[in-house]
Amino acid sequence: MAVSGIRYAISRTTRRPFEDVVALTREALAAEGFGILCEIDVQATMRAKLGVEREPYLILGACNPPLAHEALTAEPELGVLLPCNVAVYVDGGATHVAAVDPRPLFELVGKAEVEPVADEVRARLERVVAAVA
Amino acid sequence: MAVSGIRYAISRTTRRPFEDVVALTREALAAEGFGILCEIDVQATMRAKLGVEREPYLILGACNPPLAHEALTAEPELGVLLPCNVAVYVDGGATHVAAVDPRPLFELVGKAEVEPVADEVRARLERVVAAVA
Repeated sequence: MAVSGIRYAISRTTRRPFEDVVALTREALAAEGFGILCEIDVQATMRAKLGVEREPYLILGACNPPLAHEALTAEPELGVLLPCNVAVYVDGGATHVAAVDPRPLFELVGKAEVEPVADEVRARLERVVAAVA
Repeated sequence: MAVSGIRYAISRTTRRPFEDVVALTREALAAEGFGILCEIDVQATMRAKLGVEREPYLILGACNPPLAHEALTAEPELGVLLPCNVAVYVDGGATHVAAVDPRPLFELVGKAEVEPVADEVRARLERVVAAVA
């Protein structure tokens, strides 16, 4: 298990199988009050659209409705940065889970009101990633 | 029609009705090679989850498969920043269309290979927003 230093994601690597990590991610998101508003099967999309074979890659679009409502009320345009994605994918023989770090994204907004929301969402996503990996 | 100075979105305001702008956005995205991989009806979600009434607000998750494949090959974790969202919403008696600006997001990645992809996606999204508003 390794924590990445990448600045826009909270991520871990695990030896657990992809399908197990997907199931654990769904459970952990629900436990932290996130609904999954959309799912993108990147592997299937690339196969269908480009005829390209990639390893399994799923993007879960997670939303905590009270926090999203608070952020959108402060800054309507912030919807272009929602929902908060959690990606589960296979690369280099390991399964990776990566949640977007909302702090650098919300910093682009430049509004003090959204910063506590970003901190709260980040804390929850950190717990999700820790629970999974 | 006004161009916003917000750094993370390419946005315009129009007097066209919400439903017309949604239809035009779908057409313009298709013309620029974007598929819509997910849709979030924020108004319906907030009503269902919080019992809160908001004005119409739709998030379209747009993906250009060749460009997404290129970006993900250079940086697997970049999936947490995909798809590129276009939000159409009503606020202050006008309809707004806002596309995410991929450049500041992809700058967080800090990889030279993804910068041309961000520039290409931004150019296409600028044309989408211009066509709609």
